[in-house]
Amino acid sequence: MVGGGSGAFIGAVHRFAARLDGEFRLVAGALSSTPDKARASAATLGIAEDRSYDDFAKMAQREARLKDGIEAVAICTPNHLHYPVAREYLRRGIHVICDKPLTATMAEARKLAQVAEQSDALFVLTHNYSGYPMIRQAREMIAAGDIGTIRVVQVEYPQDWMTDAVEAQGSKQAEWRADPARAGAGGSIGDIGTHAFHLAGFVTGLKLDSLAADLASFVPGRQLDDNANILLRYQGGAKGVLWCSQVAPGHENGLRLRVFGDRGGLSWHQEDPNYLWFTPHGEPTRRLTRGGPGTGAAAAAVSRTPSGHPEGYLEGFANIYTAAATAIRARQAGQPVPEGLLLPGIAEGLDGVAFVDACVRSAKRNAAWTELRT
Amino acid sequence: MVGGGSGAFIGAVHRFAARLDGEFRLVAGALSSTPDKARASAATLGIAEDRSYDDFAKMAQREARLKDGIEAVAICTPNHLHYPVAREYLRRGIHVICDKPLTATMAEARKLAQVAEQSDALFVLTHNYSGYPMIRQAREMIAAGDIGTIRVVQVEYPQDWMTDAVEAQGSKQAEWRADPARAGAGGSIGDIGTHAFHLAGFVTGLKLDSLAADLASFVPGRQLDDNANILLRYQGGAKGVLWCSQVAPGHENGLRLRVFGDRGGLSWHQEDPNYLWFTPHGEPTRRLTRGGPGTGAAAAAVSRTPSGHPEGYLEGFANIYTAAATAIRARQAGQPVPEGLLLPGIAEGLDGVAFVDACVRSAKRNAAWTELRT
Amino acid sequence: MVGGGSGAFIGAVHRFAARLDGEFRLVAGALSSTPDKARASAATLGIAEDRSYDDFAKMAQREARLKDGIEAVAICTPNHLHYPVAREYLRRGIHVICDKPLTATMAEARKLAQVAEQSDALFVLTHNYSGYPMIRQAREMIAAGDIGTIRVVQVEYPQDWMTDAVEAQGSKQAEWRADPARAGAGGSIGDIGTHAFHLAGFVTGLKLDSLAADLASFVPGRQLDDNANILLRYQGGAKGVLWCSQVAPGHENGLRLRVFGDRGGLSWHQEDPNYLWFTPHGEPTRRLTRGGPGTGAAAAAVSRTPSGHPEGYLEGFANIYTAAATAIRARQAGQPVPEGLLLPGIAEGLDGVAFVDACVRSAKRNAAWTELRT
Amino acid sequence: MVGGGSGAFIGAVHRFAARLDGEFRLVAGALSSTPDKARASAATLGIAEDRSYDDFAKMAQREARLKDGIEAVAICTPNHLHYPVAREYLRRGIHVICDKPLTATMAEARKLAQVAEQSDALFVLTHNYSGYPMIRQAREMIAAGDIGTIRVVQVEYPQDWMTDAVEAQGSKQAEWRADPARAGAGGSIGDIGTHAFHLAGFVTGLKLDSLAADLASFVPGRQLDDNANILLRYQGGAKGVLWCSQVAPGHENGLRLRVFGDRGGLSWHQEDPNYLWFTPHGEPTRRLTRGGPGTGAAAAAVSRTPSGHPEGYLEGFANIYTAAATAIRARQAGQPVPEGLLLPGIAEGLDGVAFVDACVRSAKRNAAWTELRT
Repeated sequence: MVGGGSGAFIGAVHRFAARLDGEFRLVAGALSSTPDKARASAATLGIAEDRSYDDFAKMAQREARLKDGIEAVAICTPNHLHYPVAREYLRRGIHVICDKPLTATMAEARKLAQVAEQSDALFVLTHNYSGYPMIRQAREMIAAGDIGTIRVVQVEYPQDWMTDAVEAQGSKQAEWRADPARAGAGGSIGDIGTHAFHLAGFVTGLKLDSLAADLASFVPGRQLDDNANILLRYQGGAKGVLWCSQVAPGHENGLRLRVFGDRGGLSWHQEDPNYLWFTPHGEPTRRLTRGGPGTGAAAAAVSRTPSGHPEGYLEGFANIYTAAATAIRARQAGQPVPEGLLLPGIAEGLDGVAFVDACVRSAKRNAAWTELRT
Repeated sequence: MVGGGSGAFIGAVHRFAARLDGEFRLVAGALSSTPDKARASAATLGIAEDRSYDDFAKMAQREARLKDGIEAVAICTPNHLHYPVAREYLRRGIHVICDKPLTATMAEARKLAQVAEQSDALFVLTHNYSGYPMIRQAREMIAAGDIGTIRVVQVEYPQDWMTDAVEAQGSKQAEWRADPARAGAGGSIGDIGTHAFHLAGFVTGLKLDSLAADLASFVPGRQLDDNANILLRYQGGAKGVLWCSQVAPGHENGLRLRVFGDRGGLSWHQEDPNYLWFTPHGEPTRRLTRGGPGTGAAAAAVSRTPSGHPEGYLEGFANIYTAAATAIRARQAGQPVPEGLLLPGIAEGLDGVAFVDACVRSAKRNAAWTELRT
Repeated sequence: MVGGGSGAFIGAVHRFAARLDGEFRLVAGALSSTPDKARASAATLGIAEDRSYDDFAKMAQREARLKDGIEAVAICTPNHLHYPVAREYLRRGIHVICDKPLTATMAEARKLAQVAEQSDALFVLTHNYSGYPMIRQAREMIAAGDIGTIRVVQVEYPQDWMTDAVEAQGSKQAEWRADPARAGAGGSIGDIGTHAFHLAGFVTGLKLDSLAADLASFVPGRQLDDNANILLRYQGGAKGVLWCSQVAPGHENGLRLRVFGDRGGLSWHQEDPNYLWFTPHGEPTRRLTRGGPGTGAAAAAVSRTPSGHPEGYLEGFANIYTAAATAIRARQAGQPVPEGLLLPGIAEGLDGVAFVDACVRSAKRNAAWTELRT
Repeated sequence: MVGGGSGAFIGAVHRFAARLDGEFRLVAGALSSTPDKARASAATLGIAEDRSYDDFAKMAQREARLKDGIEAVAICTPNHLHYPVAREYLRRGIHVICDKPLTATMAEARKLAQVAEQSDALFVLTHNYSGYPMIRQAREMIAAGDIGTIRVVQVEYPQDWMTDAVEAQGSKQAEWRADPARAGAGGSIGDIGTHAFHLAGFVTGLKLDSLAADLASFVPGRQLDDNANILLRYQGGAKGVLWCSQVAPGHENGLRLRVFGDRGGLSWHQEDPNYLWFTPHGEPTRRLTRGGPGTGAAAAAVSRTPSGHPEGYLEGFANIYTAAATAIRARQAGQPVPEGLLLPGIAEGLDGVAFVDACVRSAKRNAAWTELRT
């Protein structure tokens, strides 16, 4: 693991996710660039002293040479390090499991795509919300035509934790996310907008053509956007709205997706993820439950418990990790990675950075329509 | 009453609303322009034969001369008749209670504003959703600063009843709403978007500066919009999204308003109207109930039953009617209309038509930012 | 109207309900036994001075003799007056619409039944919750076998307004309800338990055989029960629980009914009355909406607005009143009262008082099983 | 692990729970008494061949002697084996983590209590629902007096998976649960009623004095109860109802707890476990969220992710496991087990079996009041 030292939110999440199905063991880490902190974090996590590093490059170098060196690395750093770290490991043939967004800039994203192409190692991007069983169910239903031709996509991702200037009040999580040098050009659009954007595409199978983004930085002194109202036009004619916000009091992690076709509608909410609401047009709305009647193979493949036993965020995240393990094993056996794993990778990462890039370009032109360019 | 013959949805609603508090009696009507239908509807509703008309102008003429002629008229016709009918009655000093939108065109709206100014009679526009108690509560709280300075407004109004081409399948309600000659230039934006637009302004006290509207007519052959994704910019810097749709399966009458300030957030849903969700930033979300702890005078003034006894659509509508009665009585007594009644009138009507007009102008220029012009 | 002077909750409700469909006009009243209060209330409500009384018997006497005397009387007094007042009017052939419970004692209930039998006048008991459209829908579905043979009935009616000793703190509503001399032997079981009991029987069509009631008076000094946990055994083998409470903080008027059969389940909540949740066993749960797909004739017959336009407590109450008007008209025309009106009357009232009586008898024997006796 | 071979629901759950925090490794198992099945299951789970057993006693014997033998055993068998298996391991000083109920009979429970008392090993009973963070929050609030003196406890646990005679249709899960020889004298009361009973006591701190249980076996041919309506009387005067059912269509795993005191109320639902609804009497209801404002140390101690990132069933279960690991470590270090771990053990297990026993005794006497006897 690179990054993810004590106190980091997402590093801990990666570790839970890696552990849940017993497919990974944490054996080495460059958990911090501050030597003391790296050492202390490693000790807490049971990493042997000689496999704790304070430099991700040194770790890559040494682990690649060890007989029992790491097979995969998890990258849990701020965005601006995704590119240099991922490059280092991919070049040495070590599989990479990287947090989103892919990189902090479009240029880096394109370079990383090249690096990945030249590497034998896998690159997995943790768009974890696509790992939820009822998201898989929605995707399967849409692909099967259950709601007909899609017309309208409404996706929103409101949070409230940056309502005040927390980046100036000691929040480590907020500090780098509000800093263009570390986060890139996107604030809320990069941090959570990319998730919403990916989820909508993942579920609907639609490709975004262009967008019109009205970005705002409501908190005085904040450099990056903390609220984004975005019109969407998909290839093929569907339209939508993406709203993401980190200044919406009453919302903790309110990712919500609604899709409407000419034959029905679907609705899903991340904070209540075991349900999917399905309305066949002209019939009563149905509450589909994870594992319950009417749910299919796609959801079952990523479920661990029977219906009524809520699975949540860590289970969804773990589904990405466990799929990554399966993919790595296939690669090691010289076999193709099974498509059904639905693993987000470089392509999805490029799309995400292109989304941020298009938002920023659109916003600079007064929210004019802007095409996505990867 | 003009319009609202047998089978009309909104005519019946006006009658319930007028009757609930015992402030109005229905004594005359031009319920249809088809003589037979007018007569039959009148008979059903207990209107005396000699006060049933098949021509709204004749009714205005004669009732104005009768000693016990009508004091007020309710206009429940398709949009294109709002202007000529309202003009006729206002000119004769008969108070007008008119369904929204004000008129079918901006030109008519401006002319009607002049007519109203020159009349002694009142003009009331039934933006009924502003009559809900918890909407009054929200308005009062925002005015009192409970959520601080407003940053973000999210208002949506999805329905699903026009998912198919029902206007071509015999639905009277759909027929005129889908016909530009009778509905005006707006489809969903005129029919329901104006409600959403009005409600957001009513609750927040904000004035919309400009909008960027992406209109769509998803149903093949439909001439007017059936889905609108609209970016909003309010004077003072707040931003928002208005989504209205009549092709969103799973939504019957899903008007929902969420407002976020720098100190808190509010959320309300028309289909569950007795609750208002309030989050003071940094505190748990609270469910305020109509008549329950923490609700104030504004809501109480338009409530009829204790908390836990749900009031709904007709009660909210009746609040507009009863306020109109109070206003009429004040006017008859030569007193000013009490401001606290919060009656929507010509000004709100002009704003609404200007909203539709701006949407259409924006849409024609590829959803470019467009200022509202009354 | 007898009772229901200014400040009374249920009197106002009866008036709204009577007025909504335009079937009744309030023309006379003995609104209070205090002459001044009676007069003032009558004036406020627009009752002519000479038809305002301070004695219900005088009113009955005089109105019965008037050419245009009242056709029906609404009784909105505390329970102990239901019997003497109803008797007075029934004997004079004036139709009675009476609030529940039927009477304060079993003896009175039986006597009133006799009086009613000997009268030509109708007796209607306002078990208003049976007037909700989705309750009618549930009843229709159960009768049609949609959930199969009923096994389990769970009905609850929690409130919180008597959590403190409000009867000693000036609450008029609480005062008489907590006073055995005026309320009868039942506290919460009489005030709200009878509603829950009636609703369960109305919807399921089942007849209660026996019960085991554990009554409590949690508030110090309170003489009547404020919480009741009651086991139910229905004829035919279904079992259930009825919980009613007026000391359950967080519940305003939380009547909720759930019924489970061998082929499905139904769930309904009074505070969200436009929805009925239906689970055919082995299929996803469906949200049926008033007026929406899958709802039938029984609900439609008592609905006023399309789906998505919430109807509430007053509309449900008005359904009883309007059915009463229809029944009265039939009676006046010498025709039988249509069965489909589903009007609660003497029989339902007797059952309700028998329920209270059985609860009290059971509680006295340590919640032993006790049969209902009418 | 004893029991929990391929296809078993609860065995897999124990493994996830043990793994999530990285505190346990599965190294040995007697996963089935059928040798082939035991071997195959062990192989799938990565257990070395020489540590896979087909006899729990042999495993206990051998592992106790191994230098690196197991430190703890998880018992995931049907109820009737809990006693003999637990006894075997406790006697050999191996810590036991056992599924509920403690044993199939009261006699076994008492004997096991003696065995445990004489052993140095720990005994942990997986009443996993007490591991949910918001349950800890509720417990902490009640202990702090936030809802005052408790008056009413309503706990219910409806499921629907045994609505049909699934035990006769090939369901392994149902087969032993419906068989008195393997499940003991309780059907639904043992399987889920014990969870509900424990949770109510855990949260409120109240001790149940007596109960009146009306048990039913609705499915033809079923020997054990599948629905139980139970009146509760707690020491100190609080009263309640416990309803558990496995024949309630529409309910998957609907454990719900509501507690009402003289100063407030709390409500929690297992299927939406990240929320706790709190009503201070006379104030609006608040939605407390796991990790959100207003939640305290007790919940935080068993949380892994920030608010808005739903944690579910496995996380709650893992909290018991991880607490067990902490307790085992303390015991190994010769220190007392920290009380704050709130680990359910023998005492809670005895209470649970006494609850089943009292229900059965009560039911035999027509639901007469019956005291709990451990």
